Amino acid sequence: MSTSRYDFKETDPFAPIVYIYQNTALLHEEKTEYQALQVRQHPYFGRMLILDGVVQLTERDEFFYHEMLVHPVLHAHPDPKHVLIIGGGDGGSLREVLRHKGVESVTMAEIDARVVAVSKEYFPTLRTGFDDPRAQVIFTDGIKHVEAPPRLYDAIIVDSTDPVGPAVNLFSADFYKAAVEALTPNGFFVTQSESLMFHAGFVSEVHNRLKAAFPIADCYAQAIATYAGNWWTFSVGSKELNPRTPKRKPRIDTRYYSSEVHRKAFLPGALMKKLAAGTIDW
Amino acid sequence: MSTSRYDFKETDPFAPIVYIYQNTALLHEEKTEYQALQVRQHPYFGRMLILDGVVQLTERDEFFYHEMLVHPVLHAHPDPKHVLIIGGGDGGSLREVLRHKGVESVTMAEIDARVVAVSKEYFPTLRTGFDDPRAQVIFTDGIKHVEAPPRLYDAIIVDSTDPVGPAVNLFSADFYKAAVEALTPNGFFVTQSESLMFHAGFVSEVHNRLKAAFPIADCYAQAIATYAGNWWTFSVGSKELNPRTPKRKPRIDTRYYSSEVHRKAFLPGALMKKLAAGTIDW
Repeated sequence: MSTSRYDFKETDPFAPIVYIYQNTALLHEEKTEYQALQVRQHPYFGRMLILDGVVQLTERDEFFYHEMLVHPVLHAHPDPKHVLIIGGGDGGSLREVLRHKGVESVTMAEIDARVVAVSKEYFPTLRTGFDDPRAQVIFTDGIKHVEAPPRLYDAIIVDSTDPVGPAVNLFSADFYKAAVEALTPNGFFVTQSESLMFHAGFVSEVHNRLKAAFPIADCYAQAIATYAGNWWTFSVGSKELNPRTPKRKPRIDTRYYSSEVHRKAFLPGALMKKLAAGTIDW
Repeated sequence: MSTSRYDFKETDPFAPIVYIYQNTALLHEEKTEYQALQVRQHPYFGRMLILDGVVQLTERDEFFYHEMLVHPVLHAHPDPKHVLIIGGGDGGSLREVLRHKGVESVTMAEIDARVVAVSKEYFPTLRTGFDDPRAQVIFTDGIKHVEAPPRLYDAIIVDSTDPVGPAVNLFSADFYKAAVEALTPNGFFVTQSESLMFHAGFVSEVHNRLKAAFPIADCYAQAIATYAGNWWTFSVGSKELNPRTPKRKPRIDTRYYSSEVHRKAFLPGALMKKLAAGTIDW
């Protein structure tokens, strides 16, 4: 294990600002079958998971991303029992889903077994879900799993890297159509969908692909300081239910998510119209 | 004028991430009486105003900041006529205030005349307000102006740099007490107040100082990609009116602000409680 002090320079090809994390220590580094993987320690952010040169999470602020990816759809659904996570090998989304006592099974389809193994070793606050008897981790391409699902899910949660490399097809129209078929009649689909500031055109594309596949498509956002562009979007497809309306108060411990956060996070109507029209002009 | 290609490395002492803007050209550089001033051109963000090594605005995204600093309080007030801007020498806040047809006078108290002169030269989309007959620019310490105001204002808008150097006293309890006295009975005070992610403790301090001075204190936020921490806060003091409630629909052209944006931007109640208690734990 190397622990040399190092300024980590993020190499996100989609970001017009380069982020530098100073005085990090390299705890782990490897080339997996799918991507370059690093774990670093930062004096402010704690441990950081870095895939292909892009920060995926930091111990300090990961809860914003994982709570906001998972809890809106699980609270907009009256009683989610069976949940599929695609990606999310670090365990953060799994941890959040399992906080819901009513959830009976969580399947995680992660393509890269090394992400799970390394996260289990280096991220004690994220790995808590892996030992839960309700959790099942499958190392497979999530798209194949959704195309031939062993069961229908109440929620499908896509916790992916940026839309390049292994993740690119997770943002495709075909995948979204398959997801509709893999959901129960009142099921929800949610995916992280990049920055509303830096990638507004891409967010529009995702929204319109979801709109073509699902009766209802919607979008919400949360500021996340370690994701370039920061104004991070989450795009939702729904077969029947309105994702803007929480069906119940959280009965779980959250650090940030609440019913009020839920309602406020969804984009204003005028912005949704521009998103659908592809006319966001910044 | 130098136009050398240069990666500009932001030197914000309060930010745990260093931002690098690649391939900028230096258009202007000087040491003013108060601060180091640069204007750079960036391929994505356009022209950037940099004070003491920190990006103050970029042509591309400044409208988020200026609209969100100015329009919430001017719409929460039934009929603002006389407005004071402290700082804001680039002209962006002045431009937004003057969009309100009912506004009869805008006084800008800017300590650094060079910021105004350089902005007039380099930022054509920001300088539009300086020639308006309703605008008056005074080069003075805004605190002195507020302590002996020539008139009462319906709104005081603090468009300052970070709380160091010339701006530090603009975040003090004494200044807030003086601001109360310089406002009409239903007047509003608003100040930019740093990042909810990186400077939550500071945002709490500002909130509690405002709460001690004003009958009502409140806080809202907007993601801004070029401000370190990004989840940028705006702190409000009010003598009588609820800042969360817009009194009328915008009758002005905005790129982002709307009544719905206004309502959603204010922090959720649970977070306001933590802010007041100083217990934000991230």
